[in-house]
Amino acid sequence: MTVKIDDKTLEEHYSKFLNRQVSRRVNLQFWDDFLPEGVKPHPNPYVLAVGMPNEGFFPVESVHINVVEKPFQHLDYPFKSEKIHAGAAGEHGMDEAEYVKSKVDDGSMVDIWKYDPSNKDNIPIANALQYFDSRGFPQLIDFAKQLVGFLNKPAYDNWDIMAASGSSDSLSKVFTTLADEDVTVLMEEFTFTPTISNITSCGGIPIPLKLNITDDPSEQGINVEYMAQLLDNWATGDYSHLSKPRALYTVVTGQNPTGMTQSMEKRRAIYDICEKHDIMIVEDDPYGYLKFLPFDRSNPSKNQYNDGTITFEKYCKEILAPSYLTIDISGRVIRLETFSKVFAPGMRLSFIVANKFILEKLLRLADVTIRAPCGISQAMTMNIIDKWAESYDGDKVKAWLLWVMKVAAEYTHRRNVLTQALEATPAFKNGMFELVEPSAGMFLSVKINFDKFGDISDKLKAMDSVNYKLIEEGCIVILGYRMAVDRKFSYDRSNFLRLTFAMVPTDEHLQEAAARLGKGVERFFKEYQN
Amino acid sequence: MTVKIDDKTLEEHYSKFLNRQVSRRVNLQFWDDFLPEGVKPHPNPYVLAVGMPNEGFFPVESVHINVVEKPFQHLDYPFKSEKIHAGAAGEHGMDEAEYVKSKVDDGSMVDIWKYDPSNKDNIPIANALQYFDSRGFPQLIDFAKQLVGFLNKPAYDNWDIMAASGSSDSLSKVFTTLADEDVTVLMEEFTFTPTISNITSCGGIPIPLKLNITDDPSEQGINVEYMAQLLDNWATGDYSHLSKPRALYTVVTGQNPTGMTQSMEKRRAIYDICEKHDIMIVEDDPYGYLKFLPFDRSNPSKNQYNDGTITFEKYCKEILAPSYLTIDISGRVIRLETFSKVFAPGMRLSFIVANKFILEKLLRLADVTIRAPCGISQAMTMNIIDKWAESYDGDKVKAWLLWVMKVAAEYTHRRNVLTQALEATPAFKNGMFELVEPSAGMFLSVKINFDKFGDISDKLKAMDSVNYKLIEEGCIVILGYRMAVDRKFSYDRSNFLRLTFAMVPTDEHLQEAAARLGKGVERFFKEYQN
Repeated sequence: MTVKIDDKTLEEHYSKFLNRQVSRRVNLQFWDDFLPEGVKPHPNPYVLAVGMPNEGFFPVESVHINVVEKPFQHLDYPFKSEKIHAGAAGEHGMDEAEYVKSKVDDGSMVDIWKYDPSNKDNIPIANALQYFDSRGFPQLIDFAKQLVGFLNKPAYDNWDIMAASGSSDSLSKVFTTLADEDVTVLMEEFTFTPTISNITSCGGIPIPLKLNITDDPSEQGINVEYMAQLLDNWATGDYSHLSKPRALYTVVTGQNPTGMTQSMEKRRAIYDICEKHDIMIVEDDPYGYLKFLPFDRSNPSKNQYNDGTITFEKYCKEILAPSYLTIDISGRVIRLETFSKVFAPGMRLSFIVANKFILEKLLRLADVTIRAPCGISQAMTMNIIDKWAESYDGDKVKAWLLWVMKVAAEYTHRRNVLTQALEATPAFKNGMFELVEPSAGMFLSVKINFDKFGDISDKLKAMDSVNYKLIEEGCIVILGYRMAVDRKFSYDRSNFLRLTFAMVPTDEHLQEAAARLGKGVERFFKEYQN
Repeated sequence: MTVKIDDKTLEEHYSKFLNRQVSRRVNLQFWDDFLPEGVKPHPNPYVLAVGMPNEGFFPVESVHINVVEKPFQHLDYPFKSEKIHAGAAGEHGMDEAEYVKSKVDDGSMVDIWKYDPSNKDNIPIANALQYFDSRGFPQLIDFAKQLVGFLNKPAYDNWDIMAASGSSDSLSKVFTTLADEDVTVLMEEFTFTPTISNITSCGGIPIPLKLNITDDPSEQGINVEYMAQLLDNWATGDYSHLSKPRALYTVVTGQNPTGMTQSMEKRRAIYDICEKHDIMIVEDDPYGYLKFLPFDRSNPSKNQYNDGTITFEKYCKEILAPSYLTIDISGRVIRLETFSKVFAPGMRLSFIVANKFILEKLLRLADVTIRAPCGISQAMTMNIIDKWAESYDGDKVKAWLLWVMKVAAEYTHRRNVLTQALEATPAFKNGMFELVEPSAGMFLSVKINFDKFGDISDKLKAMDSVNYKLIEEGCIVILGYRMAVDRKFSYDRSNFLRLTFAMVPTDEHLQEAAARLGKGVERFFKEYQN
């Protein structure tokens, strides 16, 4: 059952959530939409109005993209090429031009031609390199709508989608629109810190929410009782001098920096609290597709993406965590997705799902700032997905998710290797640190067991010391407390390091890094003095 | 002689120009730069800190770009292809795959490989699709610095450059940084209207400057006397209730919508006024490279770019209008350039030149909004320029400007065709309208001669009527007054239409459009009633 909400209801409800900038942003349209009665437009006008260069001016006639079928595919090639393999210089095993031509011959190239009337799903150069609607190309928007409709169908009807230039851009758009002087925004106490800046630069104030940093799937993430208490007793609590929160910002799945995922029960409870206190939910979900099944200590290299356990259907219906959209009956959820973690960050491509009233405001902001995301980026992404879809009867959503599952498989492997290597260190075995097993994403938290140490007079100073030992041992990580909204508030929960297994080139790298981490922690326990 | 300005002087002078947001924008860095004494970093650390996917996750192995040597090159091909020629469907004269392979064979493809150690000037996929410094790739920044240094070397030393995602993005960055509640900004009375929105949404107030709309090269553009008077007598003038202007926004060359260019004498005078009143100059120059020599009525198809009159040296030294940067002795000029009009808008690629203090603020804004422009866009643009440079001993600036001159040549041709066709209409011959010959860019102004009409009680209503006649005749243009900052202020100068010759596909289109425009204007003169 989808709840129906009309435009007027949305406007009445959500106008009060807008930054005062929104009404000051005059969007001056200098061309005519309105025609008085009696004016009969010519059926075939010549247009001297639009300041767009004809596509004949573009220096590009076509673009041909050599795509892979799975991540790290090049490692399996029977040749070495300095242009495909890092560090292979001098070992030319193949002629790259011949390789390119073979890709053209076998039809595996993804082509972007100046015009391409033969495939309306493709975005041709004439469009890709031209100015375009700030919303993004219809091909991309249609795809995103299908994807959201398939996996995370909102519980109400009046929602819409726009493209943006990566989730950083999405976040700045959203908080430029929602935050304002003296507006408060709830967020996880450890979080993606640029969002704090987006809020404070508008004069807003971030309010941390206590996290349960644990790998218990039903407990991990935002402490719901704390959140309910905080809001129910706002007028008498620590923040009574501030206005009640306008929005909750949350990284829902594979949270940054903790790697934790909110259970569905927790999402329902948090949604209900937001309904009660009329708070918008900004659901940032860059990592959600990289969902893991639990690490199996009896079989540490078990990878359920590769052994057939996780079928396409299972992935979609059981593995992925459903969005807040799926329980959103009043249009208060703004969902942010991005192609950065499952395709490529340099594409600067993301999308925003929101109720139509809010989305319209975000679009008008885009009109006078960056406009649409880079066109060639949209074209490459969509034309590649369209090419993949040829193998699945044109089902782009399926083709895309099958790629995403291959990415998730590789991340699962990396999670396995790093977890196994960390648990093999003497420091771990001696209880000097424990792991918060990530349920999704790129991050794994290592909690230093200060209890084992004895009395620590300053946890942050001690964590700095851990970090310096690791720097000396040659293992670079992030200190959890550096991603805190309020260090004082989070002091008791600041004893963790954020590790990521995303960037390293090989398993050996993860294993060696884990060994070094173990040594560094051992040295801390041996050498640290309060 | 380059004036030396140190960092401290810039900071002291320009701090007062910043929006209050700038200081509220906490840029929380969550990794360490500082190391206490005694900590000895490992020489070969393993990095588990950075949340970037390894390049092996990117689905793209290589990209191959089929570039042209001049605009509209495809019209000269001895074949027709539906993928290269609009509307050629069904007339397959060639096999596109063979065509691609021939381009690979003759070495004319621009390649972007995953890694490419053989050419450090290229941006490989491993970087292009990755997160990157908000400033932009060094290859792009170095090129932009060379270009600015060669054509428009600033008169002071302490300047810097960053990339942005098109001039819309640049403008929003600049005015988010400079504008603020009750800050006033001077601008040409007819202008690129989204800039108005950028200013008003920050609470700022745009103040129009009177324009001389004429094709006299020394007179056209901002009315300097008006500007001097306005500022000298601010406290007693129409705007005495407002603060004195913080910045001047100006489209310096081939102005939008008028097509006019400020003479060097005028720029010196305006710069001096800004020095006197301590006003920053935001120089928006998207059209400057499309510079025209005067239209030759005795030889209307004369194109000095094609007949050898405009050599590369002449273009650089005599034709192009030097930037305000070249006379900027105090670092008050922010120059905006873009690849949109001379390469392709869909690339969303531009750059900003400013003093180091201001540029640093713009960079920190980029860090928490869109970050760097799309990487694949930067890679395509720079690798294409690098390829072209092979023919000029690696001189990228020359290779680039030679391409730009070919674009300017085509715009000159279009200017010629449209001017000739407009002057051939009976309406023009009867003095019903006159042309403001464009000195650069994409726009040409048509002034309706209301004097010839007799008494007009409401000029804007009359211009609307002209527009409706044109819509009926099938010639779509922009009404000048719709691009006014203040319609009342500009009432006397509102009798013009903006025409652009950028988008149309053919000469015939321009000729027919001009004929229709003539008919529409004739009908206005015959049919309009006050």
